[in-house]
Amino acid sequence: MEKERETLQAWKERVGQELDRVMAFWLEHSHDREHGGFFTCLGRDGRVYDDLKYVWLQGRQVWMYCRLYRKLERFHRPELLDAAKAGGEFLLRHARVAPPEKKCAFVLTRDGRPVKVQRSIFSECFYTMAMNELWRVTAEARYQSEAVDMMDQIVHWVREDPSGLGRPQLPGAVASESMAVPMMLLCLVEQLGEEDEELAGRYAQLGHWCARRILQHVQRDGQAVLENVSEDGEELSGCLGRHQNPGDGAGSVGKASLHPPPRSTRWRRGDVAPVPVRQLHESDWHGLGGPAVPRGAQSSSHCGEERKRVSGLSRALSPCLGKDPLPASPRVLTRPRAGSWLVPAPPQQPER
Amino acid sequence: MEKERETLQAWKERVGQELDRVMAFWLEHSHDREHGGFFTCLGRDGRVYDDLKYVWLQGRQVWMYCRLYRKLERFHRPELLDAAKAGGEFLLRHARVAPPEKKCAFVLTRDGRPVKVQRSIFSECFYTMAMNELWRVTAEARYQSEAVDMMDQIVHWVREDPSGLGRPQLPGAVASESMAVPMMLLCLVEQLGEEDEELAGRYAQLGHWCARRILQHVQRDGQAVLENVSEDGEELSGCLGRHQNPGDGAGSVGKASLHPPPRSTRWRRGDVAPVPVRQLHESDWHGLGGPAVPRGAQSSSHCGEERKRVSGLSRALSPCLGKDPLPASPRVLTRPRAGSWLVPAPPQQPER
Repeated sequence: MEKERETLQAWKERVGQELDRVMAFWLEHSHDREHGGFFTCLGRDGRVYDDLKYVWLQGRQVWMYCRLYRKLERFHRPELLDAAKAGGEFLLRHARVAPPEKKCAFVLTRDGRPVKVQRSIFSECFYTMAMNELWRVTAEARYQSEAVDMMDQIVHWVREDPSGLGRPQLPGAVASESMAVPMMLLCLVEQLGEEDEELAGRYAQLGHWCARRILQHVQRDGQAVLENVSEDGEELSGCLGRHQNPGDGAGSVGKASLHPPPRSTRWRRGDVAPVPVRQLHESDWHGLGGPAVPRGAQSSSHCGEERKRVSGLSRALSPCLGKDPLPASPRVLTRPRAGSWLVPAPPQQPER
Repeated sequence: MEKERETLQAWKERVGQELDRVMAFWLEHSHDREHGGFFTCLGRDGRVYDDLKYVWLQGRQVWMYCRLYRKLERFHRPELLDAAKAGGEFLLRHARVAPPEKKCAFVLTRDGRPVKVQRSIFSECFYTMAMNELWRVTAEARYQSEAVDMMDQIVHWVREDPSGLGRPQLPGAVASESMAVPMMLLCLVEQLGEEDEELAGRYAQLGHWCARRILQHVQRDGQAVLENVSEDGEELSGCLGRHQNPGDGAGSVGKASLHPPPRSTRWRRGDVAPVPVRQLHESDWHGLGGPAVPRGAQSSSHCGEERKRVSGLSRALSPCLGKDPLPASPRVLTRPRAGSWLVPAPPQQPER
């Protein structure tokens, strides 16, 4: 037991050192001090081999800097905050192709002119993540307003009318559902809802919808997560149906299977309570070593069927993940852990 | 010398056998006898794992069947002709997304409903190749009319106004030239101009334009063929500029460097004559073992500079191609060879 603890401690330190090393590299090489934003096509020596700015990568870097600044004392440095703000301002000035329309470019020139537009929601999702985190570290309302407005637009595209994305509706296109869409939307629901009761309430039903949609992608008795399924959750034929994305699959299925059920769910004797949304932020999703549930919390009733399937999936994945497949019932932690599903928890206390 | 001849003869037989084996597989497994056209997503056992029909692959298969039917006696069989005609009729009925507009789908369902449209010219190019070959084997004028009309549309998109392709013109998009476009257009020029003086004349200037454009992609003193260059033929920075497509590069540069110069070219003493278009069809482009020029023909003056660069390229490629880099001056053949640059010459006499 003592030996295992030492091994884990050594790995924890190693991961912390890697994070420091990675951050030092990006801090040194990726900042565009002239236009704001970040270079992301970097050689191993830090040389910029392309100065194009992919909007989703700009959004991720702003988000990451803010999150580290906000959560970890050693990254609570003006250098990170300034770079994140400069990146956020670059996005505000340039990400939208034709304001006031909300559609964002997929990639911009170094000085912010649009190069390509993708007919999907993902640039806009990372834009929203960035703006919400910027609001959390700066308390400037314009960032949050931008995040919420963009979120509403994304929800409209996904659930009401996708025509604004610009993809023609063709009669031969199979009606299919990609896992990436509810996966990203669930990230946004949890990002915007963090310690924000109003927004958590506003997006609660959307979160349940995302979780249900994601779990539809667990197929073949839990042995496979398929990227595309039919609208009613059945496996599709052909290349579309065979597509798998293991990394996204494992992460989002774990996430969805722990998402709290709607309030209308009736609890019966023997049922177990859902995991509070806040706890979701304190668990390590990408680890997939089992859902992290605080002592006293128990699994939710609506997840029973899916959990069985997820458990099968976990068995299928376990050769890749080591000898610790997802347990049939959630592990109980003695105390909440730092970090979130996007940033594995480094070995420091959170700042807040 | 005798030993080399034997080795070559053995390879020639091997290649012929492979062609027979490949054709037997496709004849057995790929025909859609219900709707016409071809299944192209086949497992090693011939099983159809997806019945989507990619328009460019339908066009290639129609073209290939017709070309084999027309050129090689052992493939002059009703089975090939009927399948090619059924594929051609499928394309005529379904390839265009919104007739009378000429834009074709990228992929169709088995029964011909459009699934996706690509904002490029390539579906339309293979459609044209197919229609022209169908006309050559059937003598039905409607196929040729379809080929010529589509060719005019493609030329309009490439040289006058690309807006009909549906790609938005964005202010940050770098003005760049891809090699694929003049490469495909040059194929069409030669396809349509084969033994057709009127069309060969109509597209002569276009052919020269394509050849010049292709040769602009030979960069770095002939050591690299780059897929994208600037409008004035300079290397581009970033990922766009680094893109290489060795197969297309080798084939199309060889092709372009032998394309005859415009009639207005003045010949000086010591200059060598251009290769007649007809001879181009009788050379083996993909072999790249050196341009095949009939006895008496000599290289054209406009190719001098490019040939030097191509020669450097050939040296760079020679480790992949064997020990026979492109010679500095064209080889002289004692008799024309069968086949074309798209179909390596099998060891049979052509039918015509």
